[in-house]
Amino acid sequence: MEKGIKKVVMIGAGNVGTRLALALKINGLEVLQVFSRSRESADSLAHRLDCEPATDLKKLSAEADLYIVAISDDAIPELAERFPYPGKFLVHTSGSMPMEVLKKAGNRIGVFYPLQTFSKEVEVDFSQVPLCLEAAHEQDMALLEQLAARLSTRVHRTSSEERVLLHVAAVFACNFTNHMYAIAEDILSRNGLEFEMLRPLILETARKAMHESPAKVQTGPAVRKNEKVMKKHLVILSAFEGYRKIYNFISESIIEKSKTD
Amino acid sequence: MEKGIKKVVMIGAGNVGTRLALALKINGLEVLQVFSRSRESADSLAHRLDCEPATDLKKLSAEADLYIVAISDDAIPELAERFPYPGKFLVHTSGSMPMEVLKKAGNRIGVFYPLQTFSKEVEVDFSQVPLCLEAAHEQDMALLEQLAARLSTRVHRTSSEERVLLHVAAVFACNFTNHMYAIAEDILSRNGLEFEMLRPLILETARKAMHESPAKVQTGPAVRKNEKVMKKHLVILSAFEGYRKIYNFISESIIEKSKTD
Repeated sequence: MEKGIKKVVMIGAGNVGTRLALALKINGLEVLQVFSRSRESADSLAHRLDCEPATDLKKLSAEADLYIVAISDDAIPELAERFPYPGKFLVHTSGSMPMEVLKKAGNRIGVFYPLQTFSKEVEVDFSQVPLCLEAAHEQDMALLEQLAARLSTRVHRTSSEERVLLHVAAVFACNFTNHMYAIAEDILSRNGLEFEMLRPLILETARKAMHESPAKVQTGPAVRKNEKVMKKHLVILSAFEGYRKIYNFISESIIEKSKTD
Repeated sequence: MEKGIKKVVMIGAGNVGTRLALALKINGLEVLQVFSRSRESADSLAHRLDCEPATDLKKLSAEADLYIVAISDDAIPELAERFPYPGKFLVHTSGSMPMEVLKKAGNRIGVFYPLQTFSKEVEVDFSQVPLCLEAAHEQDMALLEQLAARLSTRVHRTSSEERVLLHVAAVFACNFTNHMYAIAEDILSRNGLEFEMLRPLILETARKAMHESPAKVQTGPAVRKNEKVMKKHLVILSAFEGYRKIYNFISESIIEKSKTD
């Protein structure tokens, strides 16, 4: 255990960097430094963590056991090239980038992907966040697993191929779901109705998926093949051309899926 | 108050009829009788309510202050024609049928639409279920409001036009959302990955919508216009032709919407 990860540098101070760094600190890790190209972001998160901010990679602390890269996907290759400590352990937190994107940084590379949606200012129960781990070397994987187990009860070894599948699935389950909420909100607000009226339904729909297989509890006019109701809805949606197409398209997909399930 | 609704007959013993009848009983109303064309459904719900079952409309109790029709949309017109007590107060619970569908039943008609997804066996906190009310006469509306306030803190007067808009919005927020979950589940299970890994994300996405405007908290590759990630996802989805189209289509809708918001 004496070789465990104790000191961490967080590279990136966005939504993921912020929530992850706070979770590390709360769970007894020492966050030595926060690096961000943005002075304001670096200062703000460093202040919350009571640690040192940095905006210049040349001033990156050499003392950490782990360097966590939580920056936008497009910026990771350049960061890997410029990372100054080739013997140090470097991981990224991206769902869609392969581990190998870090290989110019050195030999000890890995991935620490939290499968959750984060906002800087929204608290999250990190113990329930699935952590998807990958490492180039088994010793480093053991270190990551040990660290991850301090933060969460949901720790998984996940290959780069599996991780990108999880990321695609997460786009459907989170981003596209949120867009469905946004369409509902738009339909209501354009007609002077409150989105608040749908909130209990939204929460219950998610709650149902906590214990059930979503395919098995699908409800609504499409799965019942209730064409009268669907036609009525399409008439209403004629005022919303884009939404009408989505309505048709997803309804067809529901009908199609119900045939094969 | 002495003219309030005290005795109810439930016509229909499906998901809505079951949860609504149980909520009525728990809140001190007397459910005199459950009618269903299915002997099994009538018996089963009547047993849970400790009341009389009926499968023949000729045996419908004449003693109720309110008759609640919780049957499939398509069956409502025939029920209205055959309803034997033209002087009695009859409401339906459908999101998409106008109140007028009941007019052959008599003069005292209305709607009692609970905007929630129900399952016979899943308990629901009825105090948070939005109840959308409509009545042909103001005196009956007052009776419905009084009844609804006993069940829920969320009581709304909603016209037939507003109600169908709510129903369309609910299809997006609930049925289509659940289909997004089902697609995610399918992508994962076909690759030997557990849907369980997405459950915390699904719940958090819904939780966020409880306090925020979904349009304002949209995340993901589409709203960031991250074409590299979207291309990568489309390559993965080439194994799932229908999902690939949905991915493209919803991504375009997210990009389009982010321009106008």
